[in-house]
Amino acid sequence: MNFCAACGQPVKLEVPAGDHFERHVCTGCATIHYQNPRIIAGCVPQWGSKILLCKRAIEPRAGYWTLPAGFMENGEALQDAAARESMEEALARVQIGSLLAIVNVLRAHQVHIIFRAQLLDTDFGVGPESLEVALYEASEIPWAEMAFLSVEFALRRFLADREAGVEQVHFRDIDWRDGVAVLRDR
Amino acid sequence: MNFCAACGQPVKLEVPAGDHFERHVCTGCATIHYQNPRIIAGCVPQWGSKILLCKRAIEPRAGYWTLPAGFMENGEALQDAAARESMEEALARVQIGSLLAIVNVLRAHQVHIIFRAQLLDTDFGVGPESLEVALYEASEIPWAEMAFLSVEFALRRFLADREAGVEQVHFRDIDWRDGVAVLRDR
Repeated sequence: MNFCAACGQPVKLEVPAGDHFERHVCTGCATIHYQNPRIIAGCVPQWGSKILLCKRAIEPRAGYWTLPAGFMENGEALQDAAARESMEEALARVQIGSLLAIVNVLRAHQVHIIFRAQLLDTDFGVGPESLEVALYEASEIPWAEMAFLSVEFALRRFLADREAGVEQVHFRDIDWRDGVAVLRDR
Repeated sequence: MNFCAACGQPVKLEVPAGDHFERHVCTGCATIHYQNPRIIAGCVPQWGSKILLCKRAIEPRAGYWTLPAGFMENGEALQDAAARESMEEALARVQIGSLLAIVNVLRAHQVHIIFRAQLLDTDFGVGPESLEVALYEASEIPWAEMAFLSVEFALRRFLADREAGVEQVHFRDIDWRDGVAVLRDR
């Protein structure tokens, strides 16, 4: 951020009075521009014992497999965002179920919130952000080609819970130090 | 938003190619400025059977009671944000526990995420954003003076779960139409 979105004058970094963090503050109108983490909403769509996965057509991680997930929009609920992303990425109608996982992705300034879901029919397809969409049995999941650590975490916890006959909520922090992922479960 | 934060030129509202939503797009450098919901992280700090509440010193809802809660910051985890807000608003050290409630506050473009918590000692105090901080028994909670519907929802579910000896996750959407709150539980 270089300029004030309100008045167009340059901004500078400073800690406003009464605050504890550096913010972009306008040198003209003094507006404080806060930047906060964004939510990625997604789900694990099930059809019988199979799970729907999407191969990404876009960066980051084009060519790798993921769950339907994406940025939550203003004015929508988390669950509706997760269902919308299933429609956009996999042309898939889902019914959102219980909360599965919340992953704090610290460096990316994101919180990934993943729900269990039921696929309502098998008339899914390949959305514009996907190269391929397919149903996988647990034993067939391409673990070596997963796009994101948060997706792998959610999927593994989903399968373990399903095996155990429970539906828990799982928490993980993902950070990166010197190119190495640092994980913390809570 | 009137001006581009990257280059300072005016922005206009349009639906970018391949998108489904109107965005602020720069007329100079074509940067797309996305706006997404922000997370409010908070907790219900317990000390024995009592619950810690804060009377707000700032708008909105100055003079009304709330749980310690506030905007999550970039680079922190949800649970750490909730603990930080307890320290800032009530000078209170807490241990964050299980997830209690997620409330989609649609018009405000916010998601309120509230955890159960244990107060670690009673050396709390009155933070700069509070007028008063106090421990309340369930029977003494000033329901008529609650600051926010999301806080009232979280507190009522917390008490009902505690009575029942369970720790569930509760979901609600809050919207406003013609000045009237429209609630949807999930």
